[in-house]
Amino acid sequence: MNFTPSTTSEKMKLRLQKFMQQYVYPFEKEYIDYNKQNNPDGNWQQWTTHPKLKELQNLAKKEGLWNLFLPDPELGQGLSVLEYAPLAEEMGRIYNAAEIFNCNAPDTGNMEVLYHFGSESQKEEWLIPMLNGEFKSVFCMTEPQVASSDATNIETSIVEDGDSIVINGKKWWSTGLGHPEAKLAIVLGKTDTTADKHKQHSMVLVPLNTPGVEIKRMQNTFGVYDAPSGHGEIHFTNVRVPKKNLIVDFGAGFAIAQGRLGPGRIHHCMRCIGAAERALELAILRSGTRVAFGKPLAKLGGNSERFAKARIAIDQARLLTHYAAWKIDQVGVKNSMTEISAIKVVAPNVLQEVTDMAMQIHGGAGLSDDFPLINFFIQARALRLADGPDEVHLRMISRLEFKKFLS
Amino acid sequence: MNFTPSTTSEKMKLRLQKFMQQYVYPFEKEYIDYNKQNNPDGNWQQWTTHPKLKELQNLAKKEGLWNLFLPDPELGQGLSVLEYAPLAEEMGRIYNAAEIFNCNAPDTGNMEVLYHFGSESQKEEWLIPMLNGEFKSVFCMTEPQVASSDATNIETSIVEDGDSIVINGKKWWSTGLGHPEAKLAIVLGKTDTTADKHKQHSMVLVPLNTPGVEIKRMQNTFGVYDAPSGHGEIHFTNVRVPKKNLIVDFGAGFAIAQGRLGPGRIHHCMRCIGAAERALELAILRSGTRVAFGKPLAKLGGNSERFAKARIAIDQARLLTHYAAWKIDQVGVKNSMTEISAIKVVAPNVLQEVTDMAMQIHGGAGLSDDFPLINFFIQARALRLADGPDEVHLRMISRLEFKKFLS
Amino acid sequence: MNFTPSTTSEKMKLRLQKFMQQYVYPFEKEYIDYNKQNNPDGNWQQWTTHPKLKELQNLAKKEGLWNLFLPDPELGQGLSVLEYAPLAEEMGRIYNAAEIFNCNAPDTGNMEVLYHFGSESQKEEWLIPMLNGEFKSVFCMTEPQVASSDATNIETSIVEDGDSIVINGKKWWSTGLGHPEAKLAIVLGKTDTTADKHKQHSMVLVPLNTPGVEIKRMQNTFGVYDAPSGHGEIHFTNVRVPKKNLIVDFGAGFAIAQGRLGPGRIHHCMRCIGAAERALELAILRSGTRVAFGKPLAKLGGNSERFAKARIAIDQARLLTHYAAWKIDQVGVKNSMTEISAIKVVAPNVLQEVTDMAMQIHGGAGLSDDFPLINFFIQARALRLADGPDEVHLRMISRLEFKKFLS
Amino acid sequence: MNFTPSTTSEKMKLRLQKFMQQYVYPFEKEYIDYNKQNNPDGNWQQWTTHPKLKELQNLAKKEGLWNLFLPDPELGQGLSVLEYAPLAEEMGRIYNAAEIFNCNAPDTGNMEVLYHFGSESQKEEWLIPMLNGEFKSVFCMTEPQVASSDATNIETSIVEDGDSIVINGKKWWSTGLGHPEAKLAIVLGKTDTTADKHKQHSMVLVPLNTPGVEIKRMQNTFGVYDAPSGHGEIHFTNVRVPKKNLIVDFGAGFAIAQGRLGPGRIHHCMRCIGAAERALELAILRSGTRVAFGKPLAKLGGNSERFAKARIAIDQARLLTHYAAWKIDQVGVKNSMTEISAIKVVAPNVLQEVTDMAMQIHGGAGLSDDFPLINFFIQARALRLADGPDEVHLRMISRLEFKKFLS
Repeated sequence: MNFTPSTTSEKMKLRLQKFMQQYVYPFEKEYIDYNKQNNPDGNWQQWTTHPKLKELQNLAKKEGLWNLFLPDPELGQGLSVLEYAPLAEEMGRIYNAAEIFNCNAPDTGNMEVLYHFGSESQKEEWLIPMLNGEFKSVFCMTEPQVASSDATNIETSIVEDGDSIVINGKKWWSTGLGHPEAKLAIVLGKTDTTADKHKQHSMVLVPLNTPGVEIKRMQNTFGVYDAPSGHGEIHFTNVRVPKKNLIVDFGAGFAIAQGRLGPGRIHHCMRCIGAAERALELAILRSGTRVAFGKPLAKLGGNSERFAKARIAIDQARLLTHYAAWKIDQVGVKNSMTEISAIKVVAPNVLQEVTDMAMQIHGGAGLSDDFPLINFFIQARALRLADGPDEVHLRMISRLEFKKFLS
Repeated sequence: MNFTPSTTSEKMKLRLQKFMQQYVYPFEKEYIDYNKQNNPDGNWQQWTTHPKLKELQNLAKKEGLWNLFLPDPELGQGLSVLEYAPLAEEMGRIYNAAEIFNCNAPDTGNMEVLYHFGSESQKEEWLIPMLNGEFKSVFCMTEPQVASSDATNIETSIVEDGDSIVINGKKWWSTGLGHPEAKLAIVLGKTDTTADKHKQHSMVLVPLNTPGVEIKRMQNTFGVYDAPSGHGEIHFTNVRVPKKNLIVDFGAGFAIAQGRLGPGRIHHCMRCIGAAERALELAILRSGTRVAFGKPLAKLGGNSERFAKARIAIDQARLLTHYAAWKIDQVGVKNSMTEISAIKVVAPNVLQEVTDMAMQIHGGAGLSDDFPLINFFIQARALRLADGPDEVHLRMISRLEFKKFLS
Repeated sequence: MNFTPSTTSEKMKLRLQKFMQQYVYPFEKEYIDYNKQNNPDGNWQQWTTHPKLKELQNLAKKEGLWNLFLPDPELGQGLSVLEYAPLAEEMGRIYNAAEIFNCNAPDTGNMEVLYHFGSESQKEEWLIPMLNGEFKSVFCMTEPQVASSDATNIETSIVEDGDSIVINGKKWWSTGLGHPEAKLAIVLGKTDTTADKHKQHSMVLVPLNTPGVEIKRMQNTFGVYDAPSGHGEIHFTNVRVPKKNLIVDFGAGFAIAQGRLGPGRIHHCMRCIGAAERALELAILRSGTRVAFGKPLAKLGGNSERFAKARIAIDQARLLTHYAAWKIDQVGVKNSMTEISAIKVVAPNVLQEVTDMAMQIHGGAGLSDDFPLINFFIQARALRLADGPDEVHLRMISRLEFKKFLS
Repeated sequence: MNFTPSTTSEKMKLRLQKFMQQYVYPFEKEYIDYNKQNNPDGNWQQWTTHPKLKELQNLAKKEGLWNLFLPDPELGQGLSVLEYAPLAEEMGRIYNAAEIFNCNAPDTGNMEVLYHFGSESQKEEWLIPMLNGEFKSVFCMTEPQVASSDATNIETSIVEDGDSIVINGKKWWSTGLGHPEAKLAIVLGKTDTTADKHKQHSMVLVPLNTPGVEIKRMQNTFGVYDAPSGHGEIHFTNVRVPKKNLIVDFGAGFAIAQGRLGPGRIHHCMRCIGAAERALELAILRSGTRVAFGKPLAKLGGNSERFAKARIAIDQARLLTHYAAWKIDQVGVKNSMTEISAIKVVAPNVLQEVTDMAMQIHGGAGLSDDFPLINFFIQARALRLADGPDEVHLRMISRLEFKKFLS
């Protein structure tokens, strides 16, 4: 056992930190404010990205801080999930910074799907341009009518019709749907409801400009639209795509989705750790300068204990994230279900609690746009539902425990 | 000891419930949506109220469901704080419904100040029109530069100058500042920083159109501006008002502020209980209809225990609120500090936890405008800071405990 | 609504407090130490009561501080459950003090059963002597083989055989079984396993000296035997008692047991509140005198906040206990199930948490016999299982909530 | 980063597990029961060890499963702190099993003191026989009069007098003091109260048979004396030992104590992890066989979620323990203070919570000697105070955080 990060990872992290210090921290407030103020409501047709974003992306690409999530040494940077962890944490310290490095969800998960399961032509048509940052994508899984945390509930139909595939159904909470550059949806649906329950699903590539695709509305979380990416509701009405857009095969969708969510969940958790570190840092800094009852907040009541507990929670969450990442690297997603589910519960909850505490230290200002805490809070709160609610992950863990002891 | 509500309170509650059923529940979604969609950003100059609001207010006034918070039998409805409690709870079930009954903060607190401490002329000029719902008001206490939870930190100056009073200082988080009908600010500041620390403050009435008053900006919580009332930053630069605008006397401000916050805190807590009941109801209803893994959510994992714990927490919070209200009625705010601080900590935290749980049951939709949960959540989160952060109230309680035992 | 205690209750409380101050507090340490040191292990045949106990009991009887729990004005003191609440709290401040006033479990519950459901001859033979403190009793419900928190699991058989009733089965955790004066067991078993599941049980009076009754062993909690009362395992092998020992009728046992547990649970909770108050008081006193890092513990880290939170939790628990008591008085046990279950969860947990906190303030000494905290802790921990584990009460509450909304 | 345990550690663990399976699990109940039943009260002069213990110790020694904690390859097994971690966890699964392998506190810590700081003659006279298991030792730090969690409070005096050292003072909670083979006390006291506050202390070796040494009493935790080791109060009255019994030098005591507590704290935590795993295992097994309301407990209410949360908490605690162990190995105790304090807070609390949950699953039996849960619970509860209470460790962590950000 050895907790020293790999040299590759460590070196990359130093370069990333330097980039963040030089370009991203100074840009943070302007970036977050732009995204809210220039895209004030749900009219996604008018949403724009900050003009400087593309410039920073090009800079990151030039410096090799690009596609860090992808293990492939040619297409990505050849980092294992574990090696990528500290980098994702670093990005997570600033809300949405991952986008600058082409490392943001759901594009990363979508690229992974294409990388691991896509045909050669799918890779050429979709993966390569996405790796170049040429367009954005969405992943359409959750449905309004059913509790989609149980994927067997999914109702969208994906059926073969001659040389085509026909898609009908409604999806919502599709992240990235409002992005001006969004071009592709990866859609999960059912082809054969009579098959074994894990063989019913198919996954298909649907360009957003296909007839029958309709973006109904953007949805908000806590009133925030998270522009210019957004999360939205999308309807598919007799949408027809060529068969070559099918990923792997009919009936393979469930398995692909499971695999997709493994590293993706870890990436989310890594970013949560970074955000939690940042929130703690902000809280400590604030507590040293604000004075009440004759003392800095740091010395009042239980504040110092709260900081200590946050430190402990964050360090534990980081270790568990690294351990889950390592397990994925070593034995694959399928054999790391306890660890993936565990960290998927832990990391967002730690972020929510630490941010809540940091807000309390900041007073009213902590709840407002004056500080980045609300972004972290909403990120945490949403993530406790996204990619499987806490309860579903706890369920998974307990089932695996029962298997160990009650067979 | 007797837990039966008074007949007066009970009768009024039945009438209020009927009014809510008939007019307010059907209006809820439209009302909340209007306030957000028609007032999408911080440009308060363009904020408007829903056209139907005035109509409902008139109806409420006509039916005697008006100024229920005011104990005076002529000007209000003659209800004690305890008798008002179940009514405020009822209103709290819908976000912002209290406004329909002229029972919303900060107007209620401001009217109480004028009722208890105002001169005859102040009552005539300001209290009577406010009781008629003719304009809105703000209370200016919190300041951006200092931790205002310790009121002795306040820096705004209120000084005598001949026949005038001159005010200089900056305030923020002044609730109601953005309202189209906001007309009056009650400002807390310091007159004599050499006096005993609880005799330094003064409280003064400042019409918002006085020269030198400048609304700098609206502030948001979790990105939401809470229009058309809003919370804002306001600067006072050599603002001059006549001496008759002083409440009671120079040096009396601290004591008035303390008295003001007593029943006001209770009102907030009552509304929290109502909101928490509503959130629990929504969660249970949703859990009965959504199905995952072959069962309604109600039957999955720990959900049913979460409902039971919410029930327990709400019932305890209600009892403590009623007890604090009763104590204020019996022995006054000064002798009820433990109870007021206790419920001020408990009620918003219960609301936050119950709402968080209800959100989890609702999935993504629970975080969006599709349900009223986010309003309740932000209400709770903000209230854990407003009128004194949790930590300051815990500090107060422990100091009173120490006095009992360690003297 | 009115939170003033009744004059009767208040007067009785003052007398009780005086008695406690004069006789019980000075006796506390000696009493607790005697019970442990003179009865060091599980050999219940050698257990003795402190010689002074009987003397104090006679004194209490003489002063009318006797059988306070019984609502009957002739046999008891005519107090309602609500009026008794503050008295039980007062007794709860000292471990086992209730015994001095003939107000200890399980005798109180057993006397209530006889009072409400006993025949005239049963009352004469058993109730009257118990009210006089002439002997002790046990209640035999829990069984080793099955999860008895679901009373339908019970396996002990109680069958008619001519003029006799024959009992066969094993019970454990029968409180009071080791007492030198224990004479009577009230046994719950099943008569007809084909009847409706709530009509299968019978309850019967079994003198402990009946042939076939065998005390197998005393059981301990955390290694403590709780002598000289104790909790024990008892076997019934072809135990034969006359038919007149049947309470009410065959098949009535379940309903009687339910009724028995109502006020009894409240009594337990009341004593928990008193014990929690005491633990908090001890913690605050200790925190004022021990010094670390140059300050009294009271001023270190989060200690003061912990005291405030304990105050809040205790006050809420007391209000909920009083409310449940009031509801039982007003509408009976059957219509107060939410409240009874709620307080049965809350009070022992509050006591456990407050005591745990107080232990931490006391350092190692808090875990030892030097302070009464461990008794309170074990009382709380055991009570989270006795009379229904927390989980069963939460289950009850959620089922009642579902009935409100999901019908 | 690499989470694979070292081959050495892994191999040793397999051998240890085999030994545990073969000899210790079958012995567990008999061993625990003997220690309680044959040593029922505080009369330590009559305490005995189970006759089979020595036999098992000899067997363990023969198989090289002896002194596993000591990094020295000659005297111990040459394992790093990190390599020892999984072994201590394994032992921790059975209460007091560590003693079989000469790996129990406080002997381990005392041997480490002698190993790292002892003179050659001290090693020969004391260390070597202890490594052979020839006698037992105690560590005397905590004092009854002062809050000893702040070691600068310590009042025992250790002064030079010619060729002798004279010790005066009172100590309590000295673990192992009641052991029939206890022979040596390592005593921490103050020599020069005018020196820098971390240079005042000295540490000295005091044979328990030295005149002036008086064992006053054994202390219990939750009524349990933890025989035959016990924890006791010991007084030193003009106790005189030769100068060669001084460890390192006058004034070096504080630093030695700090160093001593590093790995020792980790050992405790490791054992907690093992105990928590065991408690979870027992809970799951019980939940599969007990039935209530028609279902195994495993399927009722929130039980399955509780198991999942226990799994998460244990896995996180293990990772943090391993990380702290690794850090000690790499950069020493002094540079690992955050990690040592963090795990010292986490591990006992996790054990307490998991055990509390497991007790709840076991019903009344879980609180009794029928299951090993109470031993684990008391172990956890005591450890939240021993070697520094939680609050002191949180204080340490927050001070280190402040140093990072507020300098």
